[in-house]
Amino acid sequence: MRFIDACLGRPVDTTPVWVMRQAGRYLPEYRELRAQSDFLTMCRTPELAAEATLQPMRRFDLDAAIIFSDILIPVEAMGMAVEFRPAPYFPAPITGKEDIARLVIPHPKRDLGFVLEALRQVRAALDPKKALIGFVGAPFTLAAYMVEGGGSKDFMQLKGMMHRDPAAFSDLLAKLADTIAPYLAAQIDAGANAVQLFDTWAGQLAPEDFAKFALPAARSVIERVRREGVPVIYFVNGAAPYLDVLRSSKADVLGIDFRVDLGQAIERLGRDVVVQGNLDPAVLLGPAAQIEARAAAIVEKGKAAKGHIFNLGHGINKDTDPQAMSVLVDAVHKAGTR
Amino acid sequence: MRFIDACLGRPVDTTPVWVMRQAGRYLPEYRELRAQSDFLTMCRTPELAAEATLQPMRRFDLDAAIIFSDILIPVEAMGMAVEFRPAPYFPAPITGKEDIARLVIPHPKRDLGFVLEALRQVRAALDPKKALIGFVGAPFTLAAYMVEGGGSKDFMQLKGMMHRDPAAFSDLLAKLADTIAPYLAAQIDAGANAVQLFDTWAGQLAPEDFAKFALPAARSVIERVRREGVPVIYFVNGAAPYLDVLRSSKADVLGIDFRVDLGQAIERLGRDVVVQGNLDPAVLLGPAAQIEARAAAIVEKGKAAKGHIFNLGHGINKDTDPQAMSVLVDAVHKAGTR
Repeated sequence: MRFIDACLGRPVDTTPVWVMRQAGRYLPEYRELRAQSDFLTMCRTPELAAEATLQPMRRFDLDAAIIFSDILIPVEAMGMAVEFRPAPYFPAPITGKEDIARLVIPHPKRDLGFVLEALRQVRAALDPKKALIGFVGAPFTLAAYMVEGGGSKDFMQLKGMMHRDPAAFSDLLAKLADTIAPYLAAQIDAGANAVQLFDTWAGQLAPEDFAKFALPAARSVIERVRREGVPVIYFVNGAAPYLDVLRSSKADVLGIDFRVDLGQAIERLGRDVVVQGNLDPAVLLGPAAQIEARAAAIVEKGKAAKGHIFNLGHGINKDTDPQAMSVLVDAVHKAGTR
Repeated sequence: MRFIDACLGRPVDTTPVWVMRQAGRYLPEYRELRAQSDFLTMCRTPELAAEATLQPMRRFDLDAAIIFSDILIPVEAMGMAVEFRPAPYFPAPITGKEDIARLVIPHPKRDLGFVLEALRQVRAALDPKKALIGFVGAPFTLAAYMVEGGGSKDFMQLKGMMHRDPAAFSDLLAKLADTIAPYLAAQIDAGANAVQLFDTWAGQLAPEDFAKFALPAARSVIERVRREGVPVIYFVNGAAPYLDVLRSSKADVLGIDFRVDLGQAIERLGRDVVVQGNLDPAVLLGPAAQIEARAAAIVEKGKAAKGHIFNLGHGINKDTDPQAMSVLVDAVHKAGTR
């Protein structure tokens, strides 16, 4: 598989491409599917999740499918109620030690079997040349949602706990790592060819706290999930301040957000790195010629690394014209040809 | 003035310190003042704005006062309605060329005289050893609010316009620069010893777009405002990806947010730089010993630069205990002693 080869730093005929949130609201067929069931029902129903996963694969020449799910799915199985309004909302956020002690470590097959079944169905239906990606939120990002009760502008609840009671906060991260690692392993068993850890909120930390909390928690998951031939991708949203320490995550591939110049990221990480990214999704709202030019520029920069998987530097925007995705995918494969 | 000396790279007896949003809700005396009038009324009433500005100066040994105002104040004078709910909200956001053409360039003395009068009152009341800072939002950040109609998670309205109609977007930035430059000059005439441009949202841009839009618009203001002995500070929130180009803003001082390691920022900017920052405001929610240790570490890093003004890397949080500010200010002055 072209995608897996690139992740492992092997030669490829062209740059592989997939797009974060490629199974999503910008597709009319997704909106039709979604009109019939709410978001969580779709995540929990293997047939619906599999169908959503496959929709973009039928339209575009993407090199990987990513399972339709949510980064927060295992948190509910830990015993916390979660709602999507549509942003994630926890009616009873974590406030301290007692709440953390009450969290249970879910058993993937028993508690999250619907995700595993969706993966099996997609893997059976998918072109064998295309990779299937499993995923989950990284420990810090899940902790952020659980303590804040949702997204936040400044994460002061979370950081307050982190600075006032670092031991309790580390316990929470450890419990999340203990949940996530077997969950990702089970996703691989069920057919995922690669897995991605999303650290959506780690970019909100001072570098010292990123290195102290978010990074070791992610590394602890990555080290446990590591398996021959199955790449682990670590995506930190807002990674620019941490480029000097990111490789110690031990991830096979580092996902780079759109705020960073990819060429500079590769220089700072070292050229023997494999990177994924990083076009600004907003470029897809502009003219086709600009999409082509910007995509080609990123593909060229990516050639300096040991491996490069093209992606947006953030999820695709819901107002994107699907035609822009076609333009993008073709531009990447054309510019990436060796 | 210790603050001005540091801004201009001259020797100082210790590291000067002030704090973004130091006149604000964490102070009980501010909450009392604010209970009697809404936010915009306070901005528009010189006596109230002056009183709020001076409140933290009475409590803490800060080296600079910053005028109580809002980065969006001149936008209203350009002809756009703005509300604070409490986040800024524009009922009729900019949608294209026609809206941009309708914007007027305000006359500072006629249209924004209340800010100038507040500055005069503060300067007359303030200890002559303490500096007074004027400020406004940078062109890109004001444009972001005006096009989005408020804050945003992804700024897709703004970026959509930027990518689809870059000429119109550049016109908007130019009109904002034409508004901001004379407004800052008038603030200096009224007694501001330094001015700060806040580019709160520029960190949401791909580096290519930062260099193409936000940076030249800020530079155009800075070049017009430049005056002997009056430092201009340029603060980009989320500056890590742009450190290599930031000096071309021509600002005397570069404000660094808390996501960046200050030592690394200085190395990348070049040691002959003057920086301001950059403690995570969340540290003030933790124990005093940690505040002292983290502040001292930043002060030490700052000594590698030609000049360093200590600040938080973002506005102080409203839930901060004022006692934490005392601890911080004393820790900086102690650690900074030459």
